Amino acid sequence: MKIDNDFFMKLAIDEAWKYQLLTYPNPAVGCVVVKNDSEILAIEAHKEAGGAHAEVNALKEAYLKYHPNTILKTIKDSFKIHEYLIKNHNGFFNDCTIYVTLEPCNHVGKTPSCANLIKQLKPKKVIIAHKDLNNVAKDGQKTLEEVGIKCELGCMQKEAYDLLFPFIKWNSNSFIFYKMAQTLNGTIDGGKISSNQALAYVHALRDKIDLLMIGGNSVRIDKPTLDARFVAGRAPEVLIYSKNKVFEPSIALFKIPNRKVTISDDLFKLLDYKFVMIEGGYTLLEKLKEKIDYIMLIISPKIKVGLNAINESLDLEFEIIHENYVGPDKIVYLKRIK
Amino acid sequence: MKIDNDFFMKLAIDEAWKYQLLTYPNPAVGCVVVKNDSEILAIEAHKEAGGAHAEVNALKEAYLKYHPNTILKTIKDSFKIHEYLIKNHNGFFNDCTIYVTLEPCNHVGKTPSCANLIKQLKPKKVIIAHKDLNNVAKDGQKTLEEVGIKCELGCMQKEAYDLLFPFIKWNSNSFIFYKMAQTLNGTIDGGKISSNQALAYVHALRDKIDLLMIGGNSVRIDKPTLDARFVAGRAPEVLIYSKNKVFEPSIALFKIPNRKVTISDDLFKLLDYKFVMIEGGYTLLEKLKEKIDYIMLIISPKIKVGLNAINESLDLEFEIIHENYVGPDKIVYLKRIK
Repeated sequence: MKIDNDFFMKLAIDEAWKYQLLTYPNPAVGCVVVKNDSEILAIEAHKEAGGAHAEVNALKEAYLKYHPNTILKTIKDSFKIHEYLIKNHNGFFNDCTIYVTLEPCNHVGKTPSCANLIKQLKPKKVIIAHKDLNNVAKDGQKTLEEVGIKCELGCMQKEAYDLLFPFIKWNSNSFIFYKMAQTLNGTIDGGKISSNQALAYVHALRDKIDLLMIGGNSVRIDKPTLDARFVAGRAPEVLIYSKNKVFEPSIALFKIPNRKVTISDDLFKLLDYKFVMIEGGYTLLEKLKEKIDYIMLIISPKIKVGLNAINESLDLEFEIIHENYVGPDKIVYLKRIK
Repeated sequence: MKIDNDFFMKLAIDEAWKYQLLTYPNPAVGCVVVKNDSEILAIEAHKEAGGAHAEVNALKEAYLKYHPNTILKTIKDSFKIHEYLIKNHNGFFNDCTIYVTLEPCNHVGKTPSCANLIKQLKPKKVIIAHKDLNNVAKDGQKTLEEVGIKCELGCMQKEAYDLLFPFIKWNSNSFIFYKMAQTLNGTIDGGKISSNQALAYVHALRDKIDLLMIGGNSVRIDKPTLDARFVAGRAPEVLIYSKNKVFEPSIALFKIPNRKVTISDDLFKLLDYKFVMIEGGYTLLEKLKEKIDYIMLIISPKIKVGLNAINESLDLEFEIIHENYVGPDKIVYLKRIK
């Protein structure tokens, strides 16, 4: 197996995907620091909005690998990590290459500018998978090159674009993803399909999204709560997609305090929200396929008889964008290509 | 992300899985060489029976990383690689750790003993995932420890066992795996499901197996050829599982020269063969589930209406043992747990 730039960038991309969507409204970003040509010092990611950027997490871990007993270990605040590294690096990063899935940010916001930090640490090279298109944060590469740091743009760009895509949509209009849980053979009924770990993951997503949309039939049949109790999170606003506006008020989802629920069959409403999750089965998928950016398929490793796509006229093709595990289940991210 | 022994061993295991089953009758083995604590020099695997062992491929690549223009680059023969490394290593491996998924072999067969090679290269440490249970090749660790090389056994042992399992079965009785191709929602009909790359992979497997078993109905309906033409390989012996012994002789599979075809409903016949692939759908899977070691599920990223598990009484649960990609499709290796 070739141990090259693609290999290291793939480690950064995979690490970033672990936090995909959970960093909203920030992009999922991964960073790998390699000393000399192939000594991996750190594989890190941006984990949540407001927290340290991927580069900062990775540079901190890289430094700690050679200086394990320094006070840096206890510092969590981004500004203070920057300050510590700038003061103490002592040329440590001069023989390092930094692999980052997105161009280092060039502005000071909730956290300081990564381009400015890297500029002062003077690594041998910075390899960037995808350009930052954001008007405020862009041009980090220029900042680095101005002080003579060698940069390379475009390593695994396609994979980095797929990783960045939700962020691009958040910044332009809406990112809409469809979450579906099924068995290996596509069965979607039969009580609890997914593992507790997968359910907790879905709850963590519900805690982040601006809107959860669900079909009227699912509400009538499953009587769901649609909250984020497994992660002690916020119950998201709900849009019930239904022509028929009449629902039993005893259904659990209506009883969450301070939650807004709308019943509507106007899909344009989705565009009022930046980050939308749709939970549903095959019928709703067929109806909404044109509106969906990604499908998140949670697959439980079982084969069993049950409700499947058999009553629809589905004929969809996808590219597999990424996959993770969550407990014993798989998560597959799909982009429709037909 | 922690960059520890598990991280490096996982790289070795994943690399080995790329050649899983294709190394028959040898085990799939992976090896990673790390200089100092985290400089990855090589990630290699055993690729086919008769070819160099994983350790030899990895040690060669590792040496070449620092000595790129030596004659070693052109040497393919295992005995000669051993000889070159023993003569020229000059202490190069003394600060290296070798991660290997299976205890280095302790005997000279078609290729020389890996334990003997490593013994002479004197690495800092050898980390072994799984003990070699083979009476002829075992005790490599002892050979290394006798000359003072530090060994550690058991890193990612469970994953290494899953990797080694076909080999264990080949050595004791038979390894039987069930190959099924489907869409994301479990549809198994509708003409060509899998990509050409996936078909070529299946043909590469057919070229290796001792027996291909298929159900009588599949033969009658699909009229398959069941050869290995995509890889210019050998057409395997076929067992048609059927009570009814009458088949149209014009069906393509009967027309392959020098191929043995048996028609039988006696499952004990499977045990006469060490390496058996069964190709089929849900009906046959339900019937044979107790006899199957692994399922190899080739999943094409499509959702479409079609034949599914709906007419069976299937209720199976699996552990996902491993996954690969083959072209746009996924390969998932499953072990039944219910």
